[in-house]
Amino acid sequence: MFESLSKLLKEETPFALVTVIEGTNKGAKLLVQPLEKSLEGTLGNESLDRVAARDALGELAAGRSGVRHYGLHGEAREEAIQVFIESFAPPPQMLIFGAVDFTGALVKVAKVLGYRVTVCDAREIFATKKRFPQADEVVADWPNRLIDQVGYSLDTQDAICILTHDNKFDVPAVLASLKTKVGYIGVMGSRRTHEDRLERLKESGVSEKEITRLRSPIGMDLGARTPEETAISVVSEIIALRTKRPMHALKDTAGPIHG
Amino acid sequence: MFESLSKLLKEETPFALVTVIEGTNKGAKLLVQPLEKSLEGTLGNESLDRVAARDALGELAAGRSGVRHYGLHGEAREEAIQVFIESFAPPPQMLIFGAVDFTGALVKVAKVLGYRVTVCDAREIFATKKRFPQADEVVADWPNRLIDQVGYSLDTQDAICILTHDNKFDVPAVLASLKTKVGYIGVMGSRRTHEDRLERLKESGVSEKEITRLRSPIGMDLGARTPEETAISVVSEIIALRTKRPMHALKDTAGPIHG
Repeated sequence: MFESLSKLLKEETPFALVTVIEGTNKGAKLLVQPLEKSLEGTLGNESLDRVAARDALGELAAGRSGVRHYGLHGEAREEAIQVFIESFAPPPQMLIFGAVDFTGALVKVAKVLGYRVTVCDAREIFATKKRFPQADEVVADWPNRLIDQVGYSLDTQDAICILTHDNKFDVPAVLASLKTKVGYIGVMGSRRTHEDRLERLKESGVSEKEITRLRSPIGMDLGARTPEETAISVVSEIIALRTKRPMHALKDTAGPIHG
Repeated sequence: MFESLSKLLKEETPFALVTVIEGTNKGAKLLVQPLEKSLEGTLGNESLDRVAARDALGELAAGRSGVRHYGLHGEAREEAIQVFIESFAPPPQMLIFGAVDFTGALVKVAKVLGYRVTVCDAREIFATKKRFPQADEVVADWPNRLIDQVGYSLDTQDAICILTHDNKFDVPAVLASLKTKVGYIGVMGSRRTHEDRLERLKESGVSEKEITRLRSPIGMDLGARTPEETAISVVSEIIALRTKRPMHALKDTAGPIHG
């Protein structure tokens, strides 16, 4: 296994290493590779390996490491076996554009989910670390300029949330986002703002197919009333979109956004 | 207005007081009463009052106070007017039964949403403040005994989440929860555990109508893979249930729970 490990680390291929830290077979290891869909080693039995591998893939996708508990054969919510799941992968990124009332709540929820969070707003007075202490980075710049700089590093597990609600900033931000491989592009705004924005995007040459990548108005249709509830509606949409579960998204429903 | 305030405070009636702290009409106040559906005072104009009152009701329902920004006539995501919304109401409560891997994540997300969170587990070794530092209270006791003690204080804005996944604990917990007016009763478990549990509840004399109050398996069908994603699926369900939005809940869908 150590040969595989050193090869994966050298190639910067994402993987998770599960180690029994309490219970039968202490020290036993299972190496989980998402790209190869392969397992190497064992924690003691096949059913335990299967459950631990599933959880390891979840942790890996979220870029998180942590302790999990199982029964002897992988039973949930039992405590016989304690494992440490170590993820070797960069955490997913979330870029939030707009230092507005909704931003702080979204930063908090995104951090619980393991994102590396960057807040960006062109207005220096609002884009401060003091306003968003939990953000990993706060940048005072135009959204499209930041995306032009870091966009190459964005992939399907990453998210862009455009909360600026000002066509001067968000049209260029959407145009720049569409050039990246980012998995989620959410754009906040009332249903009317959304319609206006679509017109402007089409005038800028954005195709119908590109527009299907946008989640606008942003979030699941939860009738959210507070910034915190809105943040929950955004991350719910991100999760359901990634797992391809059906959902009632604001982009597909009609009627009032707030409950 | 001060007469109304002192009356509401004396009667312990929930209300929100909105005060302009920056911008035109600094110091102007709007008193929002959810039970009477009435407004008293003004922040300067009707459209600003309407938007601020809507947000104040949201904050009040979440038991939170905080600063919001608007345009001169209540436009979202503008900054001309800064108000402080002060909620006078106890925060909503969440009781979480079972000190398991999912509990810590649910505590974190519930705290972002403004809940007062109690974690309860009969196993003293797991029910410790050290494991759940963000919980307001950690109780080592049987779930049904805690509900018998505090159940009288639970109402529609409160939530009970039963994560024990052990019929020995969760059947009595469900029976005790059903005696309260709590707005949300979520019960974790695989689809098979859910079926077994229903049988036991019916044997205990629980009616079909009472069973419709249970959200089981707990949460929205997001294909959640980590404890954090599961926590998001739970609070999404709580929000959508309260705002009566349609949703894909695990209780109404079939197929695998995890993505």
